[in-house]
Amino acid sequence: MQPPAEVKPSRELPLGRLEAFSDGVFAIAITLIVLELGVSSDAREHLLRSILHQWPSLLAYVTSFLTVGVIWLQHSAITGALRTADSTLYRLNLLVLLLASFLPFPTKLVSEFIRDKEPERVAVVFYGLTLLALDIALTVFVRYAAEHRRLVKDHVEAKTVETTLARQPSFLLYAVGIGISLVVPTVGVGLYLFAALYLGVPARTLRRLLGRRRP
Amino acid sequence: MQPPAEVKPSRELPLGRLEAFSDGVFAIAITLIVLELGVSSDAREHLLRSILHQWPSLLAYVTSFLTVGVIWLQHSAITGALRTADSTLYRLNLLVLLLASFLPFPTKLVSEFIRDKEPERVAVVFYGLTLLALDIALTVFVRYAAEHRRLVKDHVEAKTVETTLARQPSFLLYAVGIGISLVVPTVGVGLYLFAALYLGVPARTLRRLLGRRRP
Amino acid sequence: MQPPAEVKPSRELPLGRLEAFSDGVFAIAITLIVLELGVSSDAREHLLRSILHQWPSLLAYVTSFLTVGVIWLQHSAITGALRTADSTLYRLNLLVLLLASFLPFPTKLVSEFIRDKEPERVAVVFYGLTLLALDIALTVFVRYAAEHRRLVKDHVEAKTVETTLARQPSFLLYAVGIGISLVVPTVGVGLYLFAALYLGVPARTLRRLLGRRRP
Amino acid sequence: MQPPAEVKPSRELPLGRLEAFSDGVFAIAITLIVLELGVSSDAREHLLRSILHQWPSLLAYVTSFLTVGVIWLQHSAITGALRTADSTLYRLNLLVLLLASFLPFPTKLVSEFIRDKEPERVAVVFYGLTLLALDIALTVFVRYAAEHRRLVKDHVEAKTVETTLARQPSFLLYAVGIGISLVVPTVGVGLYLFAALYLGVPARTLRRLLGRRRP
Repeated sequence: MQPPAEVKPSRELPLGRLEAFSDGVFAIAITLIVLELGVSSDAREHLLRSILHQWPSLLAYVTSFLTVGVIWLQHSAITGALRTADSTLYRLNLLVLLLASFLPFPTKLVSEFIRDKEPERVAVVFYGLTLLALDIALTVFVRYAAEHRRLVKDHVEAKTVETTLARQPSFLLYAVGIGISLVVPTVGVGLYLFAALYLGVPARTLRRLLGRRRP
Repeated sequence: MQPPAEVKPSRELPLGRLEAFSDGVFAIAITLIVLELGVSSDAREHLLRSILHQWPSLLAYVTSFLTVGVIWLQHSAITGALRTADSTLYRLNLLVLLLASFLPFPTKLVSEFIRDKEPERVAVVFYGLTLLALDIALTVFVRYAAEHRRLVKDHVEAKTVETTLARQPSFLLYAVGIGISLVVPTVGVGLYLFAALYLGVPARTLRRLLGRRRP
Repeated sequence: MQPPAEVKPSRELPLGRLEAFSDGVFAIAITLIVLELGVSSDAREHLLRSILHQWPSLLAYVTSFLTVGVIWLQHSAITGALRTADSTLYRLNLLVLLLASFLPFPTKLVSEFIRDKEPERVAVVFYGLTLLALDIALTVFVRYAAEHRRLVKDHVEAKTVETTLARQPSFLLYAVGIGISLVVPTVGVGLYLFAALYLGVPARTLRRLLGRRRP
Repeated sequence: MQPPAEVKPSRELPLGRLEAFSDGVFAIAITLIVLELGVSSDAREHLLRSILHQWPSLLAYVTSFLTVGVIWLQHSAITGALRTADSTLYRLNLLVLLLASFLPFPTKLVSEFIRDKEPERVAVVFYGLTLLALDIALTVFVRYAAEHRRLVKDHVEAKTVETTLARQPSFLLYAVGIGISLVVPTVGVGLYLFAALYLGVPARTLRRLLGRRRP
């Protein structure tokens, strides 16, 4: 075996490629969800009413779009603070992408079944679980990066990384959303949308709020 | 709280990532619209006639393609003049992408219903409203960038930015298009196509025209 | 008006953005064509036979994939020789992308109708016309770049650019393919595939062949 | 003919463009497979049961996702070790992409037919053959790069390249998977998933294991 100094260059993987691939998957996942939108062919007579009647589909569409958008925002904020990547980070990133690109499926289920009493509940809970899993995967991704200082750029303070980590409230939001979905599914979807908007609040504002909390 | 000098680096977000993600979404939105094209399986007997008969679908396809293409042209002209991005610009960009990636849905409605009297009108107006919203979102995006000089490259003159801003006539075109669609939908789609072609005129030519207007 | 020296920087558009967007569209167009593949649900009993029976669909798939692949190869060879882009090149590029991203539609028609006598002919001719239009659009793109030396890198010889231009034989191939398609459609598709393979011959080999022709 | 020194720059093709295009195709192929997921509209009554009942589809989805993900991991590890590309490597890369972007088709067949005795066997074997072909194509790609030292970065040791080449066991895994699929298809899919996970083991760990084998 060679001395470690020789092996190092191959242990570090290019961050640019990870970003390019992730941008691609996020961009496609965020765009594919529109394919599920459509009106039945018997909508011919009252197209306007059909489109308006479809507001839960549009709500699910906007929720999924904003969730992937916000995940992308956070992903680019994280990798922007990194200097390099390693093979574990590549694999954790694949997990994030697996869940993000899976999202069109539960979104479709919600769109299709939101008017039916029983399946609606199953669809919205399933959707919430996927969103929660995606949120957890991204947190694991951040945490791994934060705990391996050699991956992080030198000028990034430990405090910034910690702040980015302080994302637990979103877990709570999704958990509450899933709980409520069991009773009133439509309100559950509304909560998921709220979670995306909440997570989408500029990091600066969030940091200020978080700053207040820690005296 | 830290002094502003410390916070600055995290306030600026990488422009490259915003461009890569946007390129991805625009590229997918522009390519997905072709999926809506198709001939019914009973076209078997007169395929040529079916294809020709489908010219409104093809018109909607070309209109959507050129609209997204032109939006992309303008987007890349704008970000090409920028030095960096901030979190608000990232969010405004998401709004532009939300509307661009939504476009395949109204395009599909137009393709499907353009032969039917009543739904045709609804579909074409809905399509026009989406195009108008996309145009407004891009204008907000430009205006925000132009008003935050620290985002703009040093050598870019205020005049150039102002010229890029002078896009109000397109609002008018879409408004007229929507109005006409209420009466003659097909002419409305033609006007949307004209708006895309008009916006697609090289910036140079546009600048010359605009230069003349302001003595 | 400002002196030309001031205006110049805004006249040149970033080549990188044009490449990124084009890579995206080519990548999506080349991947979307697989969505048209599928076996009818009544294939249940003889799936193997259904798959084998579907060889014309697979032939159309491979032909479209290789055509887009080769167009991408040539596109990257061309832009690799360029130093910068201008707004006209951006627009010609959009034309190339319009036709490339349209390709899944005629590919679908060929897949669907290749077993039926009459529509098969229409589908294959329509497919050939799209391929020919794409080829012409790319040639116009190259020609424009070659005729505007300020867009081309300094070290690229006029001869190399000229060689890349010498692509007329492909027009002929497509024209012959379209002609034959009117009589024996399946052979026509075979010729389109041959055209893609021919165009895919490494530039080096092509250059050698072309070198011989000019004494 | 010109002296070789003049011709060289045009013989080398930009690696960045190859990577960008490949990232795009991999990202799309990995995201498109989710489109095949769906529950029949008569699932309305027992949606939960329908989703759970669909586990073979989900298994195929995860297997395809991880396979493309791992192929991408290996692809980026390989191109990360390269300095430049040539036209043959571009063509071999197109072959890898052809097979990767074809994957959604056999994945769909597996999803659709896994519950039916006879077609299930055909679908799973066809799926395995595609995976095997993809694996072989990537190996040819690596081998070509490794055998043309001028394409490889100077500091990359011959040993590292050789290790990356030592991927034959995956052929064996796929071959065994295909064999078993002829008897128990579901176990075959499980083996393909195992192959993806095995190939996804961090290069470091794999290198250690391979290091042991060679005393």
